[in-house]
This record gives sequence, structure tokens and C-alpha cells, in this order.
Amino acid sequence: MAVYTEVGDEELSSFLTDYDIGHLVAFRGIAEGVENSNFLLRTEKDGVARDFILTLYERRVNPAELPWFLGLMEHLATHGVSCPLPVAGRDGNALRELAGRPAAITTFLPGVWPRHVQVEHCGPLGEALARLHEAGTTYAPTRANGLGPTAWQPLLDKAAASQGTEETFPGLTAELRLALKRILSAWPPSSDPAVLPRGQIHADLFPDNAFFLDGRVSGIIDFYFACTDLLAYDVAICLNAWCFDETGHFDTARRDALLAGYESVRPLTSAEHDALPALCAGGALRFALTRLYDWVNTPAGALVTRKDPMDYVKKLRVFLSDMSVNPVHV
Amino acid sequence: MAVYTEVGDEELSSFLTDYDIGHLVAFRGIAEGVENSNFLLRTEKDGVARDFILTLYERRVNPAELPWFLGLMEHLATHGVSCPLPVAGRDGNALRELAGRPAAITTFLPGVWPRHVQVEHCGPLGEALARLHEAGTTYAPTRANGLGPTAWQPLLDKAAASQGTEETFPGLTAELRLALKRILSAWPPSSDPAVLPRGQIHADLFPDNAFFLDGRVSGIIDFYFACTDLLAYDVAICLNAWCFDETGHFDTARRDALLAGYESVRPLTSAEHDALPALCAGGALRFALTRLYDWVNTPAGALVTRKDPMDYVKKLRVFLSDMSVNPVHV
Repeated sequence: MAVYTEVGDEELSSFLTDYDIGHLVAFRGIAEGVENSNFLLRTEKDGVARDFILTLYERRVNPAELPWFLGLMEHLATHGVSCPLPVAGRDGNALRELAGRPAAITTFLPGVWPRHVQVEHCGPLGEALARLHEAGTTYAPTRANGLGPTAWQPLLDKAAASQGTEETFPGLTAELRLALKRILSAWPPSSDPAVLPRGQIHADLFPDNAFFLDGRVSGIIDFYFACTDLLAYDVAICLNAWCFDETGHFDTARRDALLAGYESVRPLTSAEHDALPALCAGGALRFALTRLYDWVNTPAGALVTRKDPMDYVKKLRVFLSDMSVNPVHV
Repeated sequence: MAVYTEVGDEELSSFLTDYDIGHLVAFRGIAEGVENSNFLLRTEKDGVARDFILTLYERRVNPAELPWFLGLMEHLATHGVSCPLPVAGRDGNALRELAGRPAAITTFLPGVWPRHVQVEHCGPLGEALARLHEAGTTYAPTRANGLGPTAWQPLLDKAAASQGTEETFPGLTAELRLALKRILSAWPPSSDPAVLPRGQIHADLFPDNAFFLDGRVSGIIDFYFACTDLLAYDVAICLNAWCFDETGHFDTARRDALLAGYESVRPLTSAEHDALPALCAGGALRFALTRLYDWVNTPAGALVTRKDPMDYVKKLRVFLSDMSVNPVHV
């Protein structure tokens, strides 16, 4: 929620001459996007105002991977998904440099992200996720999931080794070790792609990354965790992100709406249904681990908001109990 | 640079029914405005997109003073100043409540604030400031300057009494005491309004509060320090905010351009010219004092950016030396 890098006026003017998008009309920092600096950029061309988002890529995004992300967004946007379309400069390249950072201009999307998720959001969200998965099947380049199951043990080890983890969260790393073991033993084998369909997943489709307008999804943003992985794992991440109410209770009406919306476009296979409890627990563990790692590795005085890992530990407990009670179907 | 308060979707929809500005199309947090939460709000009415800024007023702004600020902005906007125009709801009131905060919708202004001030900005800025002063003469309500000369001694006393001030800034409060004494003895008497013209001043017209487009000032924002005070003191604040280069050197070419731009609309009286060195030193002292106070009273871990008071102490030294060398004219 910040602008990390400022862009000089002459720099900006000079940067825009590389594009055929008209002349600059307005430029305002956007308080969204956790990792990058984003600006609303308005231009005018032939008397018509046009809006874009200018993104400067900060730490955490590997510049070498930006062509994959921008390529995916372009592919999805041109295959019916309401996501930002990267705008190419006059030389055909969308990925450029500004203020010493990799930078790109993408189209501005209408809508409002839901500050309070309702069951009514979950059906359209599930449907939009399925359309994203379908559109992604024809994007051939792949990107490994850097925060997938193989990353969890090292993340947990690092968090456990950090000073203060045990004092701040007594017993937590031991609990997470047991959970990790259970989840990995139930995880669908990646060696047999026929079992669970794989493809391009968003992997971070939280409410602040989905804009709604008139009850429909009008935009999906922030593809910088996207990767090639189990499609049903993306569904599981959304069940984590969208289906717990504000008291931490798992809302089965939201889950049912999300799955029904998804399956109205792409029915889950029975193997995917069977795997969902483990995938949901895995999704909860993934966010619990990255939040725990960030929590114990962020200096108390840093200018970033630390997110409490316990929110996801509680979700993890719900899904682990679901794995026990109902090991076959969610 | 943040959004402090989030607005629920239903809350926002319900809030907008109080206005006749069309239906909601987009809503994004803006990373600008130091003290308040600001959002870009786009609506559509009769097929035409319209942009606004929604502001939620946070701490530091006294709700009782909001009618004065909004009244001033409306007056200025309808008297030729490019500033945000408050939008009234169907009941005629611009000041409303949203998410438990006082809230107002104002028009969106085009332009870009200059990240790197050039001499070319200073003429148009001076001219825009003079037009603001002229337009303000017909706005009758007054507001005392809460951060004017009478506030400086108590601010300095509080900063001096804070733990750590002397260790962090050795000798600084003693230096500021001497400066304050000199400045107050040279300050124009407020008892004789004929000496220096008084009126509505912005009092915080820093580069990030002035948008430019095609070499002209396209917007002046953030009126929440505005008050009724010496017009030339507003000029002095701008000389502080716009005329030092990035190495801390006072750029007389910028000063000359700013004053020439101002005087092309409203010539300063000779008494105002004579007073400028003391007013400039007072402006530097005012920002040095509030920054020092904030610095020593902001916990190291707080989620706000502390501004170094020494930047303004250095400016203060420049203006104090100017008071000695050239006591009559800047």
C-alpha cells in the first residue's frame, strides 16, 4: 500500500514518448499493490481520455520473470479475461525501464474490490477463476511455483531458526511441522499430470485483487505470484481467501457458491474434489508460513504492515480437521 | 501516503445514493495526502465518465473546521482557482459521513506534481498563488493560523522537553530559541493590518500540492492548513518549499521567478518586500519546529515517514543570514 519509487516529471515525459498513447493529463500514486509502485496515468489522444496503470517493479519481483508475467496477462486479456493488458511501446516492447526500475504500462480496469466479502461475490469469483484457467491452457510458457509444497519445509526451517519465533508464537513451529507432514503425504503426486489438471494459476487471488462491478468480476489484477501448478490448488487458495467470515468461521454457503460458479465453467474432476481438503490445508499452510517468515524477519520499525500469521494458522486447523472428518470430499 | 480507513462496498454504494453524480464505475486508493484517506472515485452519468476524489478526514483535521475549509475551496474554485470543488449531496451538504469519518467528495484535478522542481515551475506557481490570494479576498469567514508565530514558543518548549531531543539534535533547541527571538522581534505587527495585507492563505503549498500541465498550474490541493494570515507569509512559505535545490542551496533564479510570477498578478507592497526575510525565516522555523516535534514524538516503529527537521534548520540558517546581510529587501 505505498509508492516506493518516485518518478521525475522529465523522466516520465521522456518515458511516454516511447509510447503512442497520447499526451499526459494526470498522474497520481495508487495506494494498492503490496510489492510494487503503482500510478494512475491518464493520457489524452485525439480528444479522448485514456487511463492506464504504470507499475514500477520493486524488490521480490525477479526482473527475469517479468516477460512471463506480462506475456500471461497479455494472453489472458486477449482471451476474454478482464485483466490488465500490457501496453507495448513503439518498439513493440511492453517491459521497459523507468527511474532505475523495470516498468510497464497496463490498461486501467473498472470496479471496486470487496472490502467485505459476501456470498454474492463468491459465485462470480469462482466463475472468473475458471475462465482464467481455461484461457490459460493456450499459454505455453511455464513458471514453477516458487512458493509451492517443496518451498514449505525450507520456509518453516528458516522461520523456526529465527530469533524470537518460539517466544512470540510458542509451539507454533512444532504444530506446523506436523501439519506439513500430513499435507505432503496427502498431496497429489505431480509425477502423474493425468490425475490433477495443471495450468496457469493466479496463486494470489485475494479480494483486493478482484474488482467487481454490477455483481460481476470486472477485473483481476496482480499476477506477480502466477505460476504453472494444479488448477485445483488455485481454487483452494480462493476457498482460503474468500470463504472465511470476519469471525474466522468457514462459511460453507460461500464455499458452495464459489465451487458452483467455478464448475459452471469448468467442472472439477472427481480426483480434484478428493484432493481439495489437502489442497485447502496446503493453501492455508503456504500463507501461514510466508506470513510467519515475514513477521519474524521484519524489523519492528519497518515501514510495512506485517500480517498476522495466526489468521492462516486458524484456517489451517479448520482444513486439517476437514481432512480427518471428511477425507474424500470437501 | 496511505489509506488509513477502508470503506465497505455497501457503505460506499449507500453513501453515493446521497449524490446525483451517477453510478459507481471505479474506486481506488490514492497514495497521496499526508493526513487523510483519499480515493479516486469514478462514476458514469448519461454515458459520460466523471472523476472525483473521495476524502475521509482522519486525525489532525478538526471536524468543526471542515465547513470553513470546504467553503474556502468552493469559493476559490468558483472564483477562477483550479482547486478541488466540493460536490454537494442531494440535500445541499458537501460535508457528510462515511465509515465513521467526516467525508467529502471533490472534483478530480488533472496534472502532475513536480518531483524535481525547476525554475520553470516557479513563475506559474507564484502567479497561481497570487490568484488564490486575490480570489480569497471575497471569502469572509476567517480561521486563525494554528501554526503561526504564537504557536512556535510552545512547540519549541514541548520539543525541548521531549526525551532524546538533546541527544539526537545536540544544541538545536538552543539555536532555535535564539532564532525564534530574532524572528519574533522582526515580525510585522498583526495589530496594524494596514501594514501588511492579510487574507486567506494556503499555508502548505509544497510541490506535492501543486499539479502542473503544459507548463501551467492545473491544480492546487490540500487546503487543510489554510487560514487567515499575512499574504506575504504564504509567499515566504513557497520560497522555502520551492526555491532550494536538491543540494540545499537557495536558488535565487527560482526566487526571482516565483516573485515575478506572483507580482505579475499582485505586486507586493514595499512593506511586504521589507518583511520577506523575516517571514522566510519564520516559515523555515515553523516547518523545522513541527518536524522536530513530530520526530521526537513519533515512535521509531510507527507506520509514518518522519521528515528530517534539519532540512528546515538549514533553510532557517540561510534566511537568518539573509536577515543580517540584507535586512531591507530579499
